[in-house]
Amino acid sequence: MPAPALSADEIATLLHEVFPQAFFPGCGLTLERVEYGDVRVRQAFHEDHLRPGGTISGPTMMELADFAMYVAVFSAVGPQPLAVTTNLNINFLRKPAQADLIADAKLMKVGKRLAVGEVTLTSAGSDEPVAHVTATYSIPQQR
Amino acid sequence: MPAPALSADEIATLLHEVFPQAFFPGCGLTLERVEYGDVRVRQAFHEDHLRPGGTISGPTMMELADFAMYVAVFSAVGPQPLAVTTNLNINFLRKPAQADLIADAKLMKVGKRLAVGEVTLTSAGSDEPVAHVTATYSIPQQR
Amino acid sequence: MPAPALSADEIATLLHEVFPQAFFPGCGLTLERVEYGDVRVRQAFHEDHLRPGGTISGPTMMELADFAMYVAVFSAVGPQPLAVTTNLNINFLRKPAQADLIADAKLMKVGKRLAVGEVTLTSAGSDEPVAHVTATYSIPQQR
Amino acid sequence: MPAPALSADEIATLLHEVFPQAFFPGCGLTLERVEYGDVRVRQAFHEDHLRPGGTISGPTMMELADFAMYVAVFSAVGPQPLAVTTNLNINFLRKPAQADLIADAKLMKVGKRLAVGEVTLTSAGSDEPVAHVTATYSIPQQR
Repeated sequence: MPAPALSADEIATLLHEVFPQAFFPGCGLTLERVEYGDVRVRQAFHEDHLRPGGTISGPTMMELADFAMYVAVFSAVGPQPLAVTTNLNINFLRKPAQADLIADAKLMKVGKRLAVGEVTLTSAGSDEPVAHVTATYSIPQQR
Repeated sequence: MPAPALSADEIATLLHEVFPQAFFPGCGLTLERVEYGDVRVRQAFHEDHLRPGGTISGPTMMELADFAMYVAVFSAVGPQPLAVTTNLNINFLRKPAQADLIADAKLMKVGKRLAVGEVTLTSAGSDEPVAHVTATYSIPQQR
Repeated sequence: MPAPALSADEIATLLHEVFPQAFFPGCGLTLERVEYGDVRVRQAFHEDHLRPGGTISGPTMMELADFAMYVAVFSAVGPQPLAVTTNLNINFLRKPAQADLIADAKLMKVGKRLAVGEVTLTSAGSDEPVAHVTATYSIPQQR
Repeated sequence: MPAPALSADEIATLLHEVFPQAFFPGCGLTLERVEYGDVRVRQAFHEDHLRPGGTISGPTMMELADFAMYVAVFSAVGPQPLAVTTNLNINFLRKPAQADLIADAKLMKVGKRLAVGEVTLTSAGSDEPVAHVTATYSIPQQR
């Protein structure tokens, strides 16, 4: 396995700079592990994420999964903030706890133009997945 | 086509009550059309929705599509706030404009337990879809 | 809407030539309509397509949808037999009848490298969709 | 991990009986491993599976993945031949070799009504996935 193209600190610095709407002090996102194409991101629990039934909303989980994939792409291909999702598929599996969410993203393919990965979401303190995502990112070409 | 199970006003009132985190004064969401299993929701443009490249972020579009499906489910089966998404698949097709987003959701199947629909997202003022979603909602059973 | 890049007859001739495993006399597939990015393909009913429960098997429907998308890609970008599916998502909606299957494929995006479309499958003689597919094809680049 | 509800031999016998169109002597499918919700199925290479470009066709891979999920469902919930796919999403990752295809299916959720799993497809002799599938099966209810 190659070394990651960027470390967790380098990715955090890049995200602060290019995507302050999503990654800012107090946003609750932490990059907990960054290896090559294999990262873990934690989303701190916040009551605003709840939906009817007292469970964490689907969009909260989709946003976290998409963000974790974005970090995984950086870990494999370096600073490409203009990489964009082209497809995302999510299966919601279980009701998440009122707890932090953990996203483990792993790339299955790193091509020149496309990266494809899967993300498993769990509630902190549990091993059972609450949701599973596959997603494709398009990587802009250098000219 | 049957009449909708709830009108736009009834759905808005229900959403204010059961899901104030997502639907509150100033949230920018408007229910523009509610027919049976066929609804239009508008999301007002806000700079917080932008991502690197000056385009509206994927999670903003996924959240709007999921919300429009939720409204479509209410339009077909009535007040079921505990209906939950079980699967959502999105294809991002074009860079959206810095403008309001329009979501047209249409149910393809309304079963006792599952509703399946598709959502087409466009930028206000354009006909070309910026994203296309299919989603499945699970409808809780009355006991 | 531009004219199709190839007519139904031209596509049938091409398919016979490049993909005889799928498109051969007696295969049961008919190209019923070919417009630009908008085609209809019919699959004749055959008992071999049945699965337990007396319904047409999922793989039969997936194969037909994928084939219809392939034809739709030809209708928009011309003879590109090396175009390949990169993603396909199918929702099975209703039990199909023991009848011909009709696939209506429509492209939502025709880019230089990717074409994205949706396919609605119905049983001949009915309007209700039995399955709905979205798929992405990658179009090889001329050098 | 519980024991499988049915052994590989029991599932093969059941399949011969209820689904002879798909599982018959010479069909090329072998159940190589059956644990609880975790199975491996091999599809022998056959020239009929090739598509333009000399690669194994997408529908061949989709059919194998769907079949492996069906076997995985049996391994977890027992003889339920009327279980049907409700959603299947596939990402094609690499050109498969002209070799046997291996499908490793693993259930992520086994509920009363739905089973959700993922399937990784590889070419025999290689570790790199050629395709990745997530699928949901609906399990009929006993009355």
